[in-house]
Amino acid sequence: MDAVDDADQLPETAKNDVTSFFESAPPLKDAAETEKSLKEFVDRNASLSVNGKANRVVCVTSGGTTVPLEKRCVRYIDNFASGHRGAASTEYFLMAGYSVIFLYRRGTCQPFCSLLPDDPLLECLSVADDSTIEADPLHAETVKRAITETRAAVADGILLKLPFTTIFEYLQILQLISASLRGLGPSAIFYLAAAVSDFYVPWESMTLHKIQSASGPLDMRLAQVPKMLSVLRNEWAPMAFYISFKLETDKDILLAKADMALKKYKMHMVIANELSTRKEEVIVVTEQEKVTVRRDSTQAGAEVECPLVELVVDRHSAYIKKVDP
Amino acid sequence: MDAVDDADQLPETAKNDVTSFFESAPPLKDAAETEKSLKEFVDRNASLSVNGKANRVVCVTSGGTTVPLEKRCVRYIDNFASGHRGAASTEYFLMAGYSVIFLYRRGTCQPFCSLLPDDPLLECLSVADDSTIEADPLHAETVKRAITETRAAVADGILLKLPFTTIFEYLQILQLISASLRGLGPSAIFYLAAAVSDFYVPWESMTLHKIQSASGPLDMRLAQVPKMLSVLRNEWAPMAFYISFKLETDKDILLAKADMALKKYKMHMVIANELSTRKEEVIVVTEQEKVTVRRDSTQAGAEVECPLVELVVDRHSAYIKKVDP
Repeated sequence: MDAVDDADQLPETAKNDVTSFFESAPPLKDAAETEKSLKEFVDRNASLSVNGKANRVVCVTSGGTTVPLEKRCVRYIDNFASGHRGAASTEYFLMAGYSVIFLYRRGTCQPFCSLLPDDPLLECLSVADDSTIEADPLHAETVKRAITETRAAVADGILLKLPFTTIFEYLQILQLISASLRGLGPSAIFYLAAAVSDFYVPWESMTLHKIQSASGPLDMRLAQVPKMLSVLRNEWAPMAFYISFKLETDKDILLAKADMALKKYKMHMVIANELSTRKEEVIVVTEQEKVTVRRDSTQAGAEVECPLVELVVDRHSAYIKKVDP
Repeated sequence: MDAVDDADQLPETAKNDVTSFFESAPPLKDAAETEKSLKEFVDRNASLSVNGKANRVVCVTSGGTTVPLEKRCVRYIDNFASGHRGAASTEYFLMAGYSVIFLYRRGTCQPFCSLLPDDPLLECLSVADDSTIEADPLHAETVKRAITETRAAVADGILLKLPFTTIFEYLQILQLISASLRGLGPSAIFYLAAAVSDFYVPWESMTLHKIQSASGPLDMRLAQVPKMLSVLRNEWAPMAFYISFKLETDKDILLAKADMALKKYKMHMVIANELSTRKEEVIVVTEQEKVTVRRDSTQAGAEVECPLVELVVDRHSAYIKKVDP
């Protein structure tokens, strides 16, 4: 959620920074395999098109990126993010008929699993006397839904899950996704809910081995991650519909920063979250308006992502109509 | 694994550092509840004693600690650690008749789960036509074992699981554990497999809100975590049997550092791991010897923790005999 910050760079400088970031990054493992899955996913999606219009696809990013401090990594800087927002939003996009590329941090919350306890295997299941596995009654429906819905969506080709851990992996896979969605024009959404590091240690200046603890304090200098959002928006997939997220703990600066991100990065929507209330409400900032979206607190289990995705889908439809009538 | 580094402090200085670390740390949530569980666990264990000798108890620490960079934490520094070593060792200690306090990082590997895939719910289970839950044949036995063994050990009062996330929580809970095991004298083991941060940001000097990314690099100064191991060993539970771990990526300095830890902190054993080979073999360093312990590579699924715990139990028995004949 953070890579949209205060850069005031000329587009050319941003592009150069991005180029040198990618050139110095460790190569992505399984890049060919990821490209293949993306191609299959987009081809399959084309076959779902109605009246010659491509089916809508959203790339949902979710969870925090890590920044390794050593090449053979023992220590890293991480951004707090459970991945709940991205996982829950994925469910509502699927229900709204979108195909979803779910770019998620390994180990974070998965679609259809957001209402499960942390350790569902040990907390929800038991083995009966006849050696069959049983779910406890309280969680049975949630567990079964988690197991069946994700598998079904993946098998139907409407959900593609791609995991990442480091900032290097995240940005490299995001670039592959943008290349594969570029052809969909305005039918594609980038819903950038991941908590992306602002700072990193450039690979070539990183120590190979574990940093040794000498006596005394440790001084570290971190470089800024280049403003990839600007390049994604303007170069990689310029016709797509863009939604980014702003998370702050200080309410006073939240809306100002959301406004700034909207203008600087030409986002179509910026979702402003305050850390302490983010599960109850968010403020959706667009050029025309600021809308507060709240979860339905009269309903048990109702999530703020339900009305949020509804609003996004509505504005995305209007965008498609305008751009590609 | 790291808090045993190069400090060359007088015991008094170390004690003062520890005192001020605890005084400035945010108070532990659920401290009273943790103390209560520990008391019940130790009392229950006393009732298992044979011939008037206390049953043996091992405190296994597992996973990495986080160091928050902000009080309302969005960013933190983390240490890589899957928790596999601690989880697998816990299984073998239970099999050897020990009671285990498992002090683990939230979300890391659990005992009896170390052979499961990352997301067992989605990867091993399915829902049959009659709506019952089934495990796929390949993983069925592992899944059932994971569910039943952990529950049984907890229900029998021979396994107590205590989770932590931050360095503050880890050290505060470790202190509570040492207070409750002190009375067991040489029958208690501290098996310190957790990857503990060397550096942290003292709570009182931490920024309240999220660090803002300005233009330009970020400079950070981290303080050294006080050498808690020294105080634990000498003050909190001085009769216990101590095993610490050294993880390095550079083989050349590994054994030298293991030796140093052994002497400086008066460990009974130091387990030296090299990052790239740690699942195949470890070197056990004691005052008398250096023993390489390897997993049985002729057996599928055999883990290095099996012969490692066997060796630990053997040396612990000798220690008890010597100290408390």
